[in-house]
Amino acid sequence: MSEPAYTLRELADHIQARLVGDDSAVIMGLGSLATAEAGEVSHLSSPAYRKHLAGTRATALILREADLPLWPGNALVSENPYLSFALVSQLFSRPQQLEEGHHPTAEIDPAAVVDPGARLGPGVVVGARTRISAGARLHAHVVVGEDCRIGEEVTLMPGVVIYPRVTIGARSTVHSGVVIGADGFGFTPSADGRLEPIAQLGGVSIGEDVSIGAGTTIDCGAIDDTVIEDGVKIDNQVQIGHNCHIGAHTVICGCVGIAGSTRIGRHCVLAGKCGIGGDRPIELTDGVVLSGATNVMFSIDRPGVYSGAVIHEPHGLWKRNAMRLRRLDELYRRVADLQKRVKGPKG
Amino acid sequence: MSEPAYTLRELADHIQARLVGDDSAVIMGLGSLATAEAGEVSHLSSPAYRKHLAGTRATALILREADLPLWPGNALVSENPYLSFALVSQLFSRPQQLEEGHHPTAEIDPAAVVDPGARLGPGVVVGARTRISAGARLHAHVVVGEDCRIGEEVTLMPGVVIYPRVTIGARSTVHSGVVIGADGFGFTPSADGRLEPIAQLGGVSIGEDVSIGAGTTIDCGAIDDTVIEDGVKIDNQVQIGHNCHIGAHTVICGCVGIAGSTRIGRHCVLAGKCGIGGDRPIELTDGVVLSGATNVMFSIDRPGVYSGAVIHEPHGLWKRNAMRLRRLDELYRRVADLQKRVKGPKG
Amino acid sequence: MSEPAYTLRELADHIQARLVGDDSAVIMGLGSLATAEAGEVSHLSSPAYRKHLAGTRATALILREADLPLWPGNALVSENPYLSFALVSQLFSRPQQLEEGHHPTAEIDPAAVVDPGARLGPGVVVGARTRISAGARLHAHVVVGEDCRIGEEVTLMPGVVIYPRVTIGARSTVHSGVVIGADGFGFTPSADGRLEPIAQLGGVSIGEDVSIGAGTTIDCGAIDDTVIEDGVKIDNQVQIGHNCHIGAHTVICGCVGIAGSTRIGRHCVLAGKCGIGGDRPIELTDGVVLSGATNVMFSIDRPGVYSGAVIHEPHGLWKRNAMRLRRLDELYRRVADLQKRVKGPKG
Repeated sequence: MSEPAYTLRELADHIQARLVGDDSAVIMGLGSLATAEAGEVSHLSSPAYRKHLAGTRATALILREADLPLWPGNALVSENPYLSFALVSQLFSRPQQLEEGHHPTAEIDPAAVVDPGARLGPGVVVGARTRISAGARLHAHVVVGEDCRIGEEVTLMPGVVIYPRVTIGARSTVHSGVVIGADGFGFTPSADGRLEPIAQLGGVSIGEDVSIGAGTTIDCGAIDDTVIEDGVKIDNQVQIGHNCHIGAHTVICGCVGIAGSTRIGRHCVLAGKCGIGGDRPIELTDGVVLSGATNVMFSIDRPGVYSGAVIHEPHGLWKRNAMRLRRLDELYRRVADLQKRVKGPKG
Repeated sequence: MSEPAYTLRELADHIQARLVGDDSAVIMGLGSLATAEAGEVSHLSSPAYRKHLAGTRATALILREADLPLWPGNALVSENPYLSFALVSQLFSRPQQLEEGHHPTAEIDPAAVVDPGARLGPGVVVGARTRISAGARLHAHVVVGEDCRIGEEVTLMPGVVIYPRVTIGARSTVHSGVVIGADGFGFTPSADGRLEPIAQLGGVSIGEDVSIGAGTTIDCGAIDDTVIEDGVKIDNQVQIGHNCHIGAHTVICGCVGIAGSTRIGRHCVLAGKCGIGGDRPIELTDGVVLSGATNVMFSIDRPGVYSGAVIHEPHGLWKRNAMRLRRLDELYRRVADLQKRVKGPKG
Repeated sequence: MSEPAYTLRELADHIQARLVGDDSAVIMGLGSLATAEAGEVSHLSSPAYRKHLAGTRATALILREADLPLWPGNALVSENPYLSFALVSQLFSRPQQLEEGHHPTAEIDPAAVVDPGARLGPGVVVGARTRISAGARLHAHVVVGEDCRIGEEVTLMPGVVIYPRVTIGARSTVHSGVVIGADGFGFTPSADGRLEPIAQLGGVSIGEDVSIGAGTTIDCGAIDDTVIEDGVKIDNQVQIGHNCHIGAHTVICGCVGIAGSTRIGRHCVLAGKCGIGGDRPIELTDGVVLSGATNVMFSIDRPGVYSGAVIHEPHGLWKRNAMRLRRLDELYRRVADLQKRVKGPKG
């Protein structure tokens, strides 16, 4: 495969940066300050990395005006070097290959409407009344159920399964192993203790520019739709229950589990392994940030950072502390009793 | 697709409820009290929702005898309105479409026995000596290994993978992304620190009316089978290790992880993100309920509700508390010392 | 299928054990001491199981020299009976069937190089410039992207998805539901709060004799590769972020989540449900063992066992303790105050 290459001038124009140095220098890739080679562009986004400046072999750097004096080489001057680096990186992206057109082994329901400009790989299955827009890429063995809408330039990686009644907005990406629209988890016991399913009749509505990581599952709503708003970024192995509503531009890191009917605001960040679920549906307001492995059991109505994980310890120490934790309430009462009995002046 | 529609009389007969009102009213869907539209049926299952009665536009309500005076409209009277609502919801279920017969691209081993009344979608693969019963629905790209038994009216959603030696009982449903029967995780170190696999020779035995959510994995047994009894309901992204035994009608919510050789009783409920595993195999007796994110490290022999998660806090407060937790044992000893030194009468 | 059978002499030679008893006894399977039947071999690896010796019906036992006097039957004498049992078990392994050759429905890019001795099942897709070595087994619907290397005797179970730029070493096994090489999770906010993706340009490099359990996901590196060294054993539903580096012969149990850029040493053991991730990239030195459900938020530079989970309690007790935990720092200050005020001699 021929690798992409750009002149520094092309990169400067693409990210609208001021170019200091050689317009015609050729950039063929990206690197970190410490490991970049000649022909690569790197970035100085944090003062902590200035120490690597002397040693870098990068052909050009993206940096702030203020750092320009520190660097004698080619430079792209940006107010937000890391964002500029992200924009440059996208030029070097190499999406998985997929031939134009609809592979002869694709099974398209006669009542489906698939744009001729969509690409369908081998073994793709498209259900009745589903619409696939131009520029969509459905890789090998993707299955899309009936009554779905797949927007323009949506990418569904190999093996993705979309159940009926799912809408995915333009430019969204869904990675392999993802299942969208499976039945929400709803049962109620009958008199004899058996569990009767509540039929899950809703769908899933996913906005534009959403990214969904490998192995993530998003259930359909019970009656109404589960909703993922525009720009939400979801990492791998995230579970989102039925009737959740995730606000725009929220970030959900790997292995997060979100119980049904949770509402999460806009611009939230849920770090890895968080869990959300309690006795009643939980609501997180806009701008809530959860540290890794935090379990949220009731709603949060103020933006801010919340945490809840236990810090690891050597096993023996942990064992003593963990056993004591089971008697913490008793300890409180012992301390309260002591305070009553000690008459001295407060410290 | 033509949507289903029923007269209220038909619904009343189906759920064996007393009908008060218009026998011929037509019901085309379901709604919650607050959002239901004309033509829909809703339910009043909890007194907390009585406040929504005045505003509902539902054509009919399922409710208790005692609530009948509060509602002037059409009613289906039931001792357990939520269960009745579940039974009604099933009438409106719209399972993913799958054509009758065996798709020409299905690969059926000559030594397999597939009932002509089973439906096999495109790309389905069935291994040697496997039996597929009447009414089973194997959606696109399902792979069933050799020596399996797939019961009557079992549904395997697109892409499900069933390894060899798996039995699935009648009417069970397995959602996409599920893998049943993969090798249990068993290794033992050799003298040089390399890990030798213990071959996993058992299978998986799954009962009737079991539901398995998207992305869940259930490993085969090492020698004997892993067992899931009748009526067990498993949510998404649950991991069940080799040789586990899950008792009938137990509910396992999303993201639960269960270590190998765990025995879980009947009618247990494991809320989301629980983990079960310790130094020795763990046993939960019948009727154990675990709150969300509880880790169980030793057996529980009494029914009841058990919990263990940390409650979230603002980050700064959490940090102080979490650091203190690492010295909790020391605090206990300090308090004990204080108690010895304080001679006053106990509070 | 004809089951395998071996004489005791054949087993003794295979595991290089001394045989005491009948060379020609036929072994057709394995069992535990308590459940083995005639025709099966079992093992006595731990003194705790000596009590089952009297009742076992096994045709032969693998045991230590020291235990030989306790057992009158056929014996294979080994210094490490469990390791010997593992080696015997492998003889009875029944890998999922896959026909020789390349199935006619396999889609092999003309620029791929697939050894004729590799087996490709129905619906397999192989991308451009990818090399598949002899003895590799790609089961039904496996998709391998472009620029990959699949080593000799690698097994990819049904439906596995390998993205571009992934290398898998000889004899490694990848179970169904696994996705290797999906985009790492990297975004940076633009001025308006939208999230711009950082293109993920690296690959994944997996060593020899690696095992990867069902539903596990391993992301590609941002610039360099994510690396899994030789002999690493990964259980089901593990998430490994971009640019992680996992040292040789490390064991990662089910449901572990590892944030991007984590470095884990050699011969570590991460029990189920552990989480690794913090403000900065985390490094675990060689020989670190984590107990189940431990969250690691900063690096560990000494080998040893580390823990961090909360122990479950009856719900009411947990509730009191968990609420107290939120005021633990305050309790410390109260105790410190008491200590100042109590003048008596230290206990």
